[in-house]
Amino acid sequence: MPVITIEAGKMDKEKKLQLVQGMVSVASEVLNIPEQAFTTIIRENDAENVGVGKELLADRHAK
Amino acid sequence: MPVITIEAGKMDKEKKLQLVQGMVSVASEVLNIPEQAFTTIIRENDAENVGVGKELLADRHAK
Amino acid sequence: MPVITIEAGKMDKEKKLQLVQGMVSVASEVLNIPEQAFTTIIRENDAENVGVGKELLADRHAK
Amino acid sequence: MPVITIEAGKMDKEKKLQLVQGMVSVASEVLNIPEQAFTTIIRENDAENVGVGKELLADRHAK
Amino acid sequence: MPVITIEAGKMDKEKKLQLVQGMVSVASEVLNIPEQAFTTIIRENDAENVGVGKELLADRHAK
Amino acid sequence: MPVITIEAGKMDKEKKLQLVQGMVSVASEVLNIPEQAFTTIIRENDAENVGVGKELLADRHAK
Repeated sequence: MPVITIEAGKMDKEKKLQLVQGMVSVASEVLNIPEQAFTTIIRENDAENVGVGKELLADRHAK
Repeated sequence: MPVITIEAGKMDKEKKLQLVQGMVSVASEVLNIPEQAFTTIIRENDAENVGVGKELLADRHAK
Repeated sequence: MPVITIEAGKMDKEKKLQLVQGMVSVASEVLNIPEQAFTTIIRENDAENVGVGKELLADRHAK
Repeated sequence: MPVITIEAGKMDKEKKLQLVQGMVSVASEVLNIPEQAFTTIIRENDAENVGVGKELLADRHAK
Repeated sequence: MPVITIEAGKMDKEKKLQLVQGMVSVASEVLNIPEQAFTTIIRENDAENVGVGKELLADRHAK
Repeated sequence: MPVITIEAGKMDKEKKLQLVQGMVSVASEVLNIPEQAFTTIIRENDAENVGVGKELLADRHAK
């Protein structure tokens, strides 16, 4: 505890590391909880599996 | 906000669009919130990764 | 299976029933899975616990 | 999209705002996605509802 | 990591401890991962916030 | 209902079955709810998609 989850799209490993380091630093400082206590889960969703309003993100990207 | 997540099995793109359009229409009307405010995440789970009771869905399908 | 989760705000019982009935009807028809197989979880989030962009929804509502 | 969820304990409104602003800033910059596109959900869990190893967090805090 | 989440109804503290101890023991042994690495989150849902098929669990309980 | 989710790494089918059977047995007994009522979702996360503290699990494994 705490557990951070981010639902996003495809990303490379470098961005995953930056996300984990950046979000854990912020949350650790705000909540005054040691960084080692944090678990972060990054979910890479296909754009076809994400709806924004009544549109698939994949279709929005294709425009 | 709001965010709808559906945990289901494999499906084609046409069904994903129908799910997003159908569920967002219903939820938007019931909650009186504009459709554009909705995010929907479709999770396609392998049948091997889903348990129903004490059985794997994959084994149930194989019967 | 399947499991539908909706993250939203406070709502009365009547709306919860309409949400469950409406979303399960749609998803059952699209996925061709019996309605009884569906589990739906409705999460009523305080507006203070939801961020939209870099704002708390509670602050947005207070404007 | 994207959607950030943080499972943590009780916190005051000021910390919620700092969490949303801080995490969204980081994620927006790393993923190169506009801040307005982000939804953040903060889950305040009772310490009794969180297990760390085979212990309840509430019991750990009580030591 | 790993993180176990259980969506259930109201329960007393004793049951929460039994759930955490029991599920973590099983998962630790099956996955060969130390028990201390596990985080468990117990979600107590109001029966009104849970749909089973097209019915609210609260209504099913009231029968 | 109830719904158990476990966020873990890659595992073979045999372990998935053991996890489902073991965790559902425990939870069914503790909560006094029939095993058939349980849905379990196993999430196999790439080690690159999991942060432990400010490190990617993949990097920790590579040490």
